[in-house]
Amino acid sequence: MDTRKLLEDVKSGAVSIEQAQKELIKLPYEDLGFAKLDHHRQVRQGFGEVVFCSGKADDHLVKIFESFYREDAEVLGTRASRRQYELVKAHVPQVTYDEHSQILKIEKPGKKHIGRVAVCTAGTADIRVAEEAAQVAEYFGTRVDRFYDVGVAGIHRLFARLDDIRRANCVIAIAGMEGALAGVIAGLVEVPVIAVPTSVGYGANFGGVSALLTMLNSCSNGISVVNIDNGFGAGYIATQINRLAQKQGEEE
Amino acid sequence: MDTRKLLEDVKSGAVSIEQAQKELIKLPYEDLGFAKLDHHRQVRQGFGEVVFCSGKADDHLVKIFESFYREDAEVLGTRASRRQYELVKAHVPQVTYDEHSQILKIEKPGKKHIGRVAVCTAGTADIRVAEEAAQVAEYFGTRVDRFYDVGVAGIHRLFARLDDIRRANCVIAIAGMEGALAGVIAGLVEVPVIAVPTSVGYGANFGGVSALLTMLNSCSNGISVVNIDNGFGAGYIATQINRLAQKQGEEE
Amino acid sequence: MDTRKLLEDVKSGAVSIEQAQKELIKLPYEDLGFAKLDHHRQVRQGFGEVVFCSGKADDHLVKIFESFYREDAEVLGTRASRRQYELVKAHVPQVTYDEHSQILKIEKPGKKHIGRVAVCTAGTADIRVAEEAAQVAEYFGTRVDRFYDVGVAGIHRLFARLDDIRRANCVIAIAGMEGALAGVIAGLVEVPVIAVPTSVGYGANFGGVSALLTMLNSCSNGISVVNIDNGFGAGYIATQINRLAQKQGEEE
Amino acid sequence: MDTRKLLEDVKSGAVSIEQAQKELIKLPYEDLGFAKLDHHRQVRQGFGEVVFCSGKADDHLVKIFESFYREDAEVLGTRASRRQYELVKAHVPQVTYDEHSQILKIEKPGKKHIGRVAVCTAGTADIRVAEEAAQVAEYFGTRVDRFYDVGVAGIHRLFARLDDIRRANCVIAIAGMEGALAGVIAGLVEVPVIAVPTSVGYGANFGGVSALLTMLNSCSNGISVVNIDNGFGAGYIATQINRLAQKQGEEE
Amino acid sequence: MDTRKLLEDVKSGAVSIEQAQKELIKLPYEDLGFAKLDHHRQVRQGFGEVVFCSGKADDHLVKIFESFYREDAEVLGTRASRRQYELVKAHVPQVTYDEHSQILKIEKPGKKHIGRVAVCTAGTADIRVAEEAAQVAEYFGTRVDRFYDVGVAGIHRLFARLDDIRRANCVIAIAGMEGALAGVIAGLVEVPVIAVPTSVGYGANFGGVSALLTMLNSCSNGISVVNIDNGFGAGYIATQINRLAQKQGEEE
Amino acid sequence: MDTRKLLEDVKSGAVSIEQAQKELIKLPYEDLGFAKLDHHRQVRQGFGEVVFCSGKADDHLVKIFESFYREDAEVLGTRASRRQYELVKAHVPQVTYDEHSQILKIEKPGKKHIGRVAVCTAGTADIRVAEEAAQVAEYFGTRVDRFYDVGVAGIHRLFARLDDIRRANCVIAIAGMEGALAGVIAGLVEVPVIAVPTSVGYGANFGGVSALLTMLNSCSNGISVVNIDNGFGAGYIATQINRLAQKQGEEE
Amino acid sequence: MDTRKLLEDVKSGAVSIEQAQKELIKLPYEDLGFAKLDHHRQVRQGFGEVVFCSGKADDHLVKIFESFYREDAEVLGTRASRRQYELVKAHVPQVTYDEHSQILKIEKPGKKHIGRVAVCTAGTADIRVAEEAAQVAEYFGTRVDRFYDVGVAGIHRLFARLDDIRRANCVIAIAGMEGALAGVIAGLVEVPVIAVPTSVGYGANFGGVSALLTMLNSCSNGISVVNIDNGFGAGYIATQINRLAQKQGEEE
Amino acid sequence: MDTRKLLEDVKSGAVSIEQAQKELIKLPYEDLGFAKLDHHRQVRQGFGEVVFCSGKADDHLVKIFESFYREDAEVLGTRASRRQYELVKAHVPQVTYDEHSQILKIEKPGKKHIGRVAVCTAGTADIRVAEEAAQVAEYFGTRVDRFYDVGVAGIHRLFARLDDIRRANCVIAIAGMEGALAGVIAGLVEVPVIAVPTSVGYGANFGGVSALLTMLNSCSNGISVVNIDNGFGAGYIATQINRLAQKQGEEE
Repeated sequence: MDTRKLLEDVKSGAVSIEQAQKELIKLPYEDLGFAKLDHHRQVRQGFGEVVFCSGKADDHLVKIFESFYREDAEVLGTRASRRQYELVKAHVPQVTYDEHSQILKIEKPGKKHIGRVAVCTAGTADIRVAEEAAQVAEYFGTRVDRFYDVGVAGIHRLFARLDDIRRANCVIAIAGMEGALAGVIAGLVEVPVIAVPTSVGYGANFGGVSALLTMLNSCSNGISVVNIDNGFGAGYIATQINRLAQKQGEEE
Repeated sequence: MDTRKLLEDVKSGAVSIEQAQKELIKLPYEDLGFAKLDHHRQVRQGFGEVVFCSGKADDHLVKIFESFYREDAEVLGTRASRRQYELVKAHVPQVTYDEHSQILKIEKPGKKHIGRVAVCTAGTADIRVAEEAAQVAEYFGTRVDRFYDVGVAGIHRLFARLDDIRRANCVIAIAGMEGALAGVIAGLVEVPVIAVPTSVGYGANFGGVSALLTMLNSCSNGISVVNIDNGFGAGYIATQINRLAQKQGEEE
Repeated sequence: MDTRKLLEDVKSGAVSIEQAQKELIKLPYEDLGFAKLDHHRQVRQGFGEVVFCSGKADDHLVKIFESFYREDAEVLGTRASRRQYELVKAHVPQVTYDEHSQILKIEKPGKKHIGRVAVCTAGTADIRVAEEAAQVAEYFGTRVDRFYDVGVAGIHRLFARLDDIRRANCVIAIAGMEGALAGVIAGLVEVPVIAVPTSVGYGANFGGVSALLTMLNSCSNGISVVNIDNGFGAGYIATQINRLAQKQGEEE
Repeated sequence: MDTRKLLEDVKSGAVSIEQAQKELIKLPYEDLGFAKLDHHRQVRQGFGEVVFCSGKADDHLVKIFESFYREDAEVLGTRASRRQYELVKAHVPQVTYDEHSQILKIEKPGKKHIGRVAVCTAGTADIRVAEEAAQVAEYFGTRVDRFYDVGVAGIHRLFARLDDIRRANCVIAIAGMEGALAGVIAGLVEVPVIAVPTSVGYGANFGGVSALLTMLNSCSNGISVVNIDNGFGAGYIATQINRLAQKQGEEE
Repeated sequence: MDTRKLLEDVKSGAVSIEQAQKELIKLPYEDLGFAKLDHHRQVRQGFGEVVFCSGKADDHLVKIFESFYREDAEVLGTRASRRQYELVKAHVPQVTYDEHSQILKIEKPGKKHIGRVAVCTAGTADIRVAEEAAQVAEYFGTRVDRFYDVGVAGIHRLFARLDDIRRANCVIAIAGMEGALAGVIAGLVEVPVIAVPTSVGYGANFGGVSALLTMLNSCSNGISVVNIDNGFGAGYIATQINRLAQKQGEEE
Repeated sequence: MDTRKLLEDVKSGAVSIEQAQKELIKLPYEDLGFAKLDHHRQVRQGFGEVVFCSGKADDHLVKIFESFYREDAEVLGTRASRRQYELVKAHVPQVTYDEHSQILKIEKPGKKHIGRVAVCTAGTADIRVAEEAAQVAEYFGTRVDRFYDVGVAGIHRLFARLDDIRRANCVIAIAGMEGALAGVIAGLVEVPVIAVPTSVGYGANFGGVSALLTMLNSCSNGISVVNIDNGFGAGYIATQINRLAQKQGEEE
Repeated sequence: MDTRKLLEDVKSGAVSIEQAQKELIKLPYEDLGFAKLDHHRQVRQGFGEVVFCSGKADDHLVKIFESFYREDAEVLGTRASRRQYELVKAHVPQVTYDEHSQILKIEKPGKKHIGRVAVCTAGTADIRVAEEAAQVAEYFGTRVDRFYDVGVAGIHRLFARLDDIRRANCVIAIAGMEGALAGVIAGLVEVPVIAVPTSVGYGANFGGVSALLTMLNSCSNGISVVNIDNGFGAGYIATQINRLAQKQGEEE
Repeated sequence: MDTRKLLEDVKSGAVSIEQAQKELIKLPYEDLGFAKLDHHRQVRQGFGEVVFCSGKADDHLVKIFESFYREDAEVLGTRASRRQYELVKAHVPQVTYDEHSQILKIEKPGKKHIGRVAVCTAGTADIRVAEEAAQVAEYFGTRVDRFYDVGVAGIHRLFARLDDIRRANCVIAIAGMEGALAGVIAGLVEVPVIAVPTSVGYGANFGGVSALLTMLNSCSNGISVVNIDNGFGAGYIATQINRLAQKQGEEE
């Protein structure tokens, strides 16, 4: 709805006051400019739509991918199974799949990646979450550096890569078990650290709760935490921060 | 320690090899740029030192404030009691205290505040945490806008302030009880939301765990979470993000 | 047992005092009017019997359906598997099954649906619980409106349907993950909101506990909560409330 | 804001289109009918405002009571301490206080109480929560019957009052420790049961969690649960349900 | 109510059928023999009434003690404070108080104690719970042997008393911290062991949960568990078991 | 005891060998009478050996059954799978298996069952635990009465069987979900109630924790609790209590 | 062993009394060597008795100190309050008290301290637990080096002391909040690390559970954990390990 | 890097100051002597590398085994499945596998085992964890004695082996369910006890948490705890302690 046009029509008499009132009663949500406008702004900025594939009905999933592909020519799906990949591929052959990150996507070629986000993991078992974070950030146009298997049990591995990690606008620190990596990194860098606890471990790790609590209670400054195994969330926030750090370039 | 100077002194013979080795043994931390170098950079950037006052022994607290005041002419203390304020004031009269935020500090006059961070609370009982966040961010040179009592139980209060909230580089969303505020805000803004669960509530809020879980499980994108009642942490990270968003000005 | 008839028989001598005492010893439960009387009243009011199918032994399940069908010509089964459906169908061909709600039932045709209950979900993954709630309410004679995928991460979706939601005598709000939907709705409607946390989510959602706590701690007035994934319970209570709201019609 | 008046002013040219747009941008929340309109409707329906007193700053509390008293001539405060009562009384002498329910209020005389809500407790220690529920419901115009100390450890006490309990449009069942009362009552009545777990007990009651879980897991139909010790919430919902059951009278 | 008499009156016409129906409607609870009859049987068997004093209002507590003393000449109160003792004593001078068990009681002199129950504790800090158990059992007429400070950290202390412990009809095993005492004893005796976890300990004992879980998971046969710190419950059950073991004497 | 002195007295003849043996038998080890003696006493009393089959290696399980069968002519195995039954049967054809209780056993014919234990369940899904309890008790020589599906959601079902339940020396009350059955029964009988929480339910029942907490926090006197789903434990303790109640008969 | 045969052999002289004693000493009781023997060995080795003072009754505490002082001339009390110190001092003036460690003791002068144990803390608030550990170890004759405030948030502090820490036979790592110190140290030393979680922190630290879980889930090898705040336990075990490492000196 | 050599080269001019600076920037981690040096020292001492096999990708696992075998001629893998064994064996035929411990390894022949570590279990189901502990310790050169099925439910089994257990330098106590074994052993031996809770049990054992809490809260001195089911960790620490106890031999 175009408010200005409506008011002009009221003024000109083309629309009666009663009719205008009726229109305006729909305003709250239109005026908040959610849906369409946001959608447009996101597309313009490189945020294509994201689909949480896990648990989606087969026909729903296919329709969503068909629709997004038709509209935006790209779409990002997370937590997709290989079976879902094959299902979608049968209808939308452009779709690609990455086994590690479980990301199912169609991406426009030639995407530019700006800034720099560092994705670090404590161990190799955390890599599947890390790849979700990294590929989500890349999909949204972020340049990503990967630093895997640099956990604190052998802290020299982290120090060996520290100079490179410090070049990032934002660090994603991913760890299961004790989850101490995020706090140690945050004590060594100046930028925000997004901590991702993973469910990697056994026994009293309680499916990732041990790492989650470690990260929430870190004595280091500059850490904030997302849900257990939530690589997508970390990739998204890191992209937001990275864009803020780079925005002068775009604005000038 | 100036490594170059040391090496030149070794070359010129002004420093013996043995003495140089002794100096270099201190290098790991110097070279990693912890302590002194970081300290210097932080001071230059407006990050004075921070003291977690709660539980500190009386004489320790006084000495820390005296030392920081002497060295840096400013110091920030969090979680200080009124009794601690009076104790420190007897030795360092420049110290000031804010009852709501429990912040005890000495701050240089004429500090410049850049960018913009929005601090939002769901209710009035969350304000003490919010003031900790806001005053920490301000101490570190951030311009802060406060939006208190805009919880989702009466969601119009939030919408009434939304345009102003959207101007920030980072939003701090603070809520106890159900903690839904952070997720609703994150669905409405484009910048990162730092969520702070508070211990406000009773019964099955479990001292803030209910709000913590709500925030960790938010369906909205762009939320990360700090510990329960951790206003300081949120103020710190928001400052980091705000600086990243403003850094072009400094670099140019 | 007909107490009056028994007393008349005592008076007339048709039944001895000893024999009457023996009969009366069974009275407590009869006199409390449980079993038969309640059963009759329920049937009269449209409350057929309900069977929790999950875990029932095969022969038990078949017998129960046969018996209820014979007696009441209708029966409602919840949490039934497709395998159970096929098993029962082999004996009672009138039985129908809905994959989404997992409801297995025989229902009399031409049932009238009164009043209005709104069933809202935050996401699409909550629909299976919602359908259990909605179909249970419908089975008990309630008119149900469905509002799916109106979660707070994109709050405009909720506002777009708000006028319709407000027409209900009772709102069922179903959400997993952060579970904030119930509190937001309760802040926007005047009628009771029955909140159903679902186990949808991952990580620190703890199988629905995160949403459960959010709902129990809601700052909004007018929310009460049922067990995680308990669509049946919500549909039942909503029916009770809806009937209370409509009862004048029946009584006049 | 009066939308009609604004549109007339636009038509007449008394207000420019640009100015009208500026006004309308505030509309969403006004148009949603929150704040003022809701406030008016609530007052008309007998819902005065409610203040959660616990933790409120002294000057805030006094101002709130002065303001509500001036505007509405009545106000309901919950979880107030005796000290707060004396503080408010010094400024607003009309205020009254009930030690058991911790309710601090000013109430218009001659309030009519309609319908019927039954408030039941398992033990005597649950009475403080029960009185909060009962007095909140009464303040909102509900007729309340009290059935205290009818817990299942001596189930005859419950049966002795059952006929009276069954007369209610809604039953509030309040219990700590094992919390079994709600399920037993729900098996005996036809109307909705609002279950309130209390923190009464010790050891493995975990501050009311034991009773909360009992109530959430009840095998009886027609139970929904509010937060631990949340008498206010139960009284509010029971009032909503009771009004729905009575509304034909008002509408005719 | 005397059912036989009523029926005779019906037969004789002294009572009308309508009136008899009205009487019989009260039957369920009378006929179930709760209230009065049970009360009588209990008194006859030596079970006086028990009052949980903690949290009782002052005037209630006094009235209860006055009433029970008048009726039964004895009464047992648990979890009483010294202040409550002094309060009651001012009205009922016969009352006595034990600081360790927090038992406040009036007891008829010359009570006979039968059978044998062993009350064992792991440490000295468990004694307050043990004394509640022991004195409750004694009040109900049980002979009690005390075996304190025989925890498994120095298991010889237990073995030194084992022959005496084995003479009991029932053993109460009371332990905090690790709570292993109950399982070890159950492996050494033939009679039922009632395990009482206590809140004694610190850190990861979680107020007694560690001992509670130990006892519930015991590999030994013949253990059942009561709530944390529930000495009363253990004393009560041990008395029941002890009476069963002794009942032939009474019956002959 | 002075061992040296005793030996000297043996040597000198001051103490006979028999008397010395009697003294030495009190040495903790002998006096503890573990292994052989206890074994003998148990066999004599009708306590055959019990094997927890779940998780046992195949060859171990077979050997254990062969050995016990050879030695005692009977053996009781709990938590056995059908596969284990077939495995053992191939070697020990006398073995029998019950699908409901998962009990695998060889039992001497003509066993006498004494006393009376009542096994009650809230629902039908609790029966597998109940049968473990009942069959264990029967194996140990207890007469068992079964009262299934008498849960508090329809409390008249319980009252209808109450007189029969009251005839027992001990009641086993088995319930999942809310677990209220145990408390209600304990308020209605005079004998000890062994409460068995089951993992039956879903959502916030947490695998039986809800029922466990209900039972631990029961307001009724005379309840003690065993581990979740621990039918064996309940059957064992009930047998101990039942034997104590019956022992006069054997002793006379 | 055949006791009868042995006694007959003693009588006949085939076995000497000394030899018989030797045999009998293996009887479990003697062989276990509890009470006296252990006590003697401990005293000889420098393990005086330890008293957990917290919660001890005043007269008990005084008697224990008097008794131990009389017998052994030294005694170690942990978790003592200043009030308890003054109480004991009035009776046993030799007693000394340390405010930080809450240790109340009488210690023989001139105690030799052997080996080397390193006690490290993450922060200054952990020092009270560290002093309990250190002083307990010293009391038992261990040489202790203290490394306080070397937490991972500023990891250079730890590296600066690493060479010294590596000289120990055992490292005690004490940390609250995130508790990452233990894992980092264990990755850097070759000796066992005893990890002590502390209750230092707030919010989701859950009284030390966060640090406890971090330590239990550490990816580093060579960590074992004691209870939250259990400095005593850590000091005790470190002493055991340190003695093992030093024992060759004593044995030669 | 040889710092002295570098400095000499700087002095002699063989290395420029700029080049030396570049070298020194690598110093922190080199100087800390992690990686290579530690690796060498470990190999020399008999600590081959350890691979946590569970979850490793197939090709990774094969490469790791090939590489370690080539370099060190031995490698230890834990938590390996039979499938992984067969996979690795196809490439490295020297590999052996133990079904109980799930250990996959290549071990040099003729390894010497020193000292003595006792591995005790409460039941037979704990043996898989015990074998992991024992075989890890053996792989690292420790002599291991096994004491299985000596749980406290039949405590004589433990006493029968006590003399042998007491010969160890360190005891590993492994138990699930109630986990009481560790505390009882620690009360009977003088050396450190490493407690390993196992996930063996059901119901309220919560996957090993019950045993974990028991062990953390033990009243006995000298217990420290590793993660649930963490046999590897216990074997590793016991080896460290055992070596400390034996080191005089090597040093002399």
